[in-house]
Amino acid sequence: MVQENDFENGLRDDLKPTYRAVSIGLEELLHKTIPVLDHGFIRVVDYMGDDAAVVQAARVSYGRGTKKVSEDRGLIRYLMRHSHTTPFEMAEIKIHVKLPIFVARQWIRHRTASVNEYSARYSILDKEFYVPDAANLAAQSANNKQGREDAPLADNGWVLNLLREEAERSYAGYNALLNVSEEGMVIDNGRVGIARELARMNLSLNFYTQWYWKTNLHNLLNFLRLRADPHAQYEIRAYAERLLEITEKWVPLTYDAFKEYKLGAVTLSASAWKVVKSQLVGKSISFDESGLSQREWTELMSALKDE
Amino acid sequence: MVQENDFENGLRDDLKPTYRAVSIGLEELLHKTIPVLDHGFIRVVDYMGDDAAVVQAARVSYGRGTKKVSEDRGLIRYLMRHSHTTPFEMAEIKIHVKLPIFVARQWIRHRTASVNEYSARYSILDKEFYVPDAANLAAQSANNKQGREDAPLADNGWVLNLLREEAERSYAGYNALLNVSEEGMVIDNGRVGIARELARMNLSLNFYTQWYWKTNLHNLLNFLRLRADPHAQYEIRAYAERLLEITEKWVPLTYDAFKEYKLGAVTLSASAWKVVKSQLVGKSISFDESGLSQREWTELMSALKDE
Amino acid sequence: MVQENDFENGLRDDLKPTYRAVSIGLEELLHKTIPVLDHGFIRVVDYMGDDAAVVQAARVSYGRGTKKVSEDRGLIRYLMRHSHTTPFEMAEIKIHVKLPIFVARQWIRHRTASVNEYSARYSILDKEFYVPDAANLAAQSANNKQGREDAPLADNGWVLNLLREEAERSYAGYNALLNVSEEGMVIDNGRVGIARELARMNLSLNFYTQWYWKTNLHNLLNFLRLRADPHAQYEIRAYAERLLEITEKWVPLTYDAFKEYKLGAVTLSASAWKVVKSQLVGKSISFDESGLSQREWTELMSALKDE
Amino acid sequence: MVQENDFENGLRDDLKPTYRAVSIGLEELLHKTIPVLDHGFIRVVDYMGDDAAVVQAARVSYGRGTKKVSEDRGLIRYLMRHSHTTPFEMAEIKIHVKLPIFVARQWIRHRTASVNEYSARYSILDKEFYVPDAANLAAQSANNKQGREDAPLADNGWVLNLLREEAERSYAGYNALLNVSEEGMVIDNGRVGIARELARMNLSLNFYTQWYWKTNLHNLLNFLRLRADPHAQYEIRAYAERLLEITEKWVPLTYDAFKEYKLGAVTLSASAWKVVKSQLVGKSISFDESGLSQREWTELMSALKDE
Repeated sequence: MVQENDFENGLRDDLKPTYRAVSIGLEELLHKTIPVLDHGFIRVVDYMGDDAAVVQAARVSYGRGTKKVSEDRGLIRYLMRHSHTTPFEMAEIKIHVKLPIFVARQWIRHRTASVNEYSARYSILDKEFYVPDAANLAAQSANNKQGREDAPLADNGWVLNLLREEAERSYAGYNALLNVSEEGMVIDNGRVGIARELARMNLSLNFYTQWYWKTNLHNLLNFLRLRADPHAQYEIRAYAERLLEITEKWVPLTYDAFKEYKLGAVTLSASAWKVVKSQLVGKSISFDESGLSQREWTELMSALKDE
Repeated sequence: MVQENDFENGLRDDLKPTYRAVSIGLEELLHKTIPVLDHGFIRVVDYMGDDAAVVQAARVSYGRGTKKVSEDRGLIRYLMRHSHTTPFEMAEIKIHVKLPIFVARQWIRHRTASVNEYSARYSILDKEFYVPDAANLAAQSANNKQGREDAPLADNGWVLNLLREEAERSYAGYNALLNVSEEGMVIDNGRVGIARELARMNLSLNFYTQWYWKTNLHNLLNFLRLRADPHAQYEIRAYAERLLEITEKWVPLTYDAFKEYKLGAVTLSASAWKVVKSQLVGKSISFDESGLSQREWTELMSALKDE
Repeated sequence: MVQENDFENGLRDDLKPTYRAVSIGLEELLHKTIPVLDHGFIRVVDYMGDDAAVVQAARVSYGRGTKKVSEDRGLIRYLMRHSHTTPFEMAEIKIHVKLPIFVARQWIRHRTASVNEYSARYSILDKEFYVPDAANLAAQSANNKQGREDAPLADNGWVLNLLREEAERSYAGYNALLNVSEEGMVIDNGRVGIARELARMNLSLNFYTQWYWKTNLHNLLNFLRLRADPHAQYEIRAYAERLLEITEKWVPLTYDAFKEYKLGAVTLSASAWKVVKSQLVGKSISFDESGLSQREWTELMSALKDE
Repeated sequence: MVQENDFENGLRDDLKPTYRAVSIGLEELLHKTIPVLDHGFIRVVDYMGDDAAVVQAARVSYGRGTKKVSEDRGLIRYLMRHSHTTPFEMAEIKIHVKLPIFVARQWIRHRTASVNEYSARYSILDKEFYVPDAANLAAQSANNKQGREDAPLADNGWVLNLLREEAERSYAGYNALLNVSEEGMVIDNGRVGIARELARMNLSLNFYTQWYWKTNLHNLLNFLRLRADPHAQYEIRAYAERLLEITEKWVPLTYDAFKEYKLGAVTLSASAWKVVKSQLVGKSISFDESGLSQREWTELMSALKDE
């Protein structure tokens, strides 16, 4: 899953001593590029704190070493269960991400983060664009207005060809507008190209951009809850799933509590909770009495049967 | 500058009574679409507060009518001058904006705002794309790595043609991927199109999107300071300039103070201020003694000569 | 519940016409002071938007009048149920609050709000301090380390006397440090008092302060979920309960959805959900098999029995 | 300036290896308590990044080692000068602070930070309160409505006595309400004390609290610009000044740029800048022609004379 590459730039050549908290799990991954989609990646650039940082903030005046790990685990589960979120803000992570622009447009909606993005006003974007695997090409979902079907398209050759050709053409137009060759060399044809900030408008949304993204653990978990969800678009979910693995390496106790109390938890509305409780004592509430909408009823009945 | 259109939808047909503060200047503009660029617009959808709301918050326990307008003006100038920014957070505005995607990507970097954007996962985007006026087509700036020259391109016909043809083609590819006609009708050709969330990746960055954007007056002024600046890209500046006019109608006292103490103000570094003061008493500090970089020195000397 | 008072200052004397959305329910309350605790209050100063503003943002390009109220209700419930929170950011409220300093210290932890507080550096604080009703004086809770018992103290006279005497004394010390009489007049005794910013440190945390507080509907609901909760300290809950009533008047559809999907909802951890589902099919998971802590198990069993 | 104490708890006993950026200057200070006021302190608990982190984010795709330090310095000064603030968000610091409650109330107004405070609902506060040095006791300022005179009070004995006696009494009342001895032992007198969350309301605002506070470098500099300013109340300025020293150790290049372009910089309004430029060419604008208020004119003339 992890590959070495240029971005490491010797960053893993020497270890430096520090008095700070160290996450041994995350140190293993630090600076390594983790591939996502066809040309994207995630690379952890820096971090601050670990599970103990969460515990330490919750205890405030307690020193790090004064409690056993078993108690740390219990405290973290308590905090997660009761949505005491502020201690989870006390750990921080910074990643370098390469991602298609249409994914970046979803990602940036998470506002409580710091971002520095590659500037296409300042530099020329590389010729790298996203084309889905055939397995991820699917028709519009019949019952989800903002998603795709699970089963891939039977006939996908024409789609893949079209996406590739159009992206090639889009980049060729970009070069023509800049009046440069694909290698970025100015073409001597008597023409003057337009500014980079203008030419970029010709690129399509599947071209890759990259950025540094920094957020705290609490906001990272919010991101993961929304973006590792099956309703999230596959392309951003691919990043969220790698980030889940990174989170597990970084803060294993927090990750376990997150799975138990957030990712795997079920929230029942006031009316749905009444239906469940009545079933348990054998006097079932009917759909008509329930106050649930048809869709809520169907989803609840299906969830109750789910293994 | 203002045109009626569909979005008004009868919203200006009836006036309702309210006990709230009312900005007469902004009521005139409410719901009207103000054109920007070739297909974009700004439309004020709602607002809360006026100049008096700023004053009221600054005085906290003072009622609205207890002071004269002349004192309100002085207080607003005092607050702006000393960067006492919290009272300016007490007024709020909500606008509906139609804008090219590459402009939306710059705009969204202002994080302290609320946004609801048209979803291309849920609906098909219209065939509307931005092509600059010939007057705004320019070469890469020679001395600003992230801008364009002031003078427009002499030879621009090929650029305009290329941008139009490529956008047409980009939209045709989008339709083909969805397997729909330009009117959005499914084409009966035996093919199954891909989901909207996938097809959109073929669109270029000059296609228009739209959103509701809501922010407070303090953050609006920050936006304007950065985006109405000559260094901002022309296309977002076009929106910022309309917003400046809207701000003037809404909160005229705040607008005047903003021009005097922010937009038109000059900040001198510690070293530059020493140079200016020494010149005033006739014993000039030389470039070598100044501690300024070459660029800072040139800019200071030019600013001092500027009429 | 509502009383007229000085702060209204004629603000309800005249109605002005507006093209904006108007909440008839909230207009009735606007500017009126709603008493809380012994000397506190909440007063709605301004607002922006209503239930329709939430719907409008969710639909973005749809006009206000195009859908029926029944569909608005369904959409708002859908948004609330699925935690699509951004449309709820599109409505805004501003309130004037008078509250004890120790309550203000809890309240201010909600960061996504705008605040202008009465400045005790600038002005002298009034002699107003909070003393609980006898009904709200209780011993430290035996099973909640950060709460009090439900039953009030049997013997409370000494407590009430102590609190009153100490607050009187605290204010007398404040006056002495300022070298002013209780009416704020300088005392001619040859002494020079200390600055207001210093003297205030002698006041106790039950003295009242006041502020303007402005937030959007989404963040207001977050505030209410935490502060109208039975685990919140009674004194801040008293404010949250008034705010719940205000919210119901302002955005009745959102309020109903909030009760159904947030306030009255139940969240079960992954393990607890397994226990419930196994009970429904008659093959109960025991405590030992459940993976729940003793406390979680007890709470779940008690919740299932709860009528 | 630095003293060892209990909070270190062996945290400086062993160095661990890391692949992260390390600030040698800040490692020296890590975990050590730096005294502030009579009983307060600042203790750096953790940090992320250094000057190079700022540079790295600005360059995005450039690796750490590729540029010389001289170029880093130039880039940081460029970013600071032009208020390109996002790269400064890429470094983070976490401190443990002990501070009087009235200082905490000012500090918390900086919203873009994470905070975990000692809970007086959960635990009993120690008997530690702030009493100013005689040198910092001063009368209300004659020309600054929210400050104190520079010269200390001649007659201060009665003030110091009053503050001490009142704080002692305040804490005795707190103990009485809890029905505990000064050592926190329950007193066997037949009385039942009230809950901690209630008893705390009797404490005065000069009692010490403590918290973990975490923020990024950009927001730290904003805090310092406001709170290290001569107009800030002395008691919070005392903390800001220690934080300035910490910042210099942590990110020396950023610190220097901050002094040059922010702390030591001068901002002139549009009108004031015209006055200065006209003086430089020998044709002075008079006060009447200037558009400045009397106070602005006086301050400008005095600034120009200032050595």
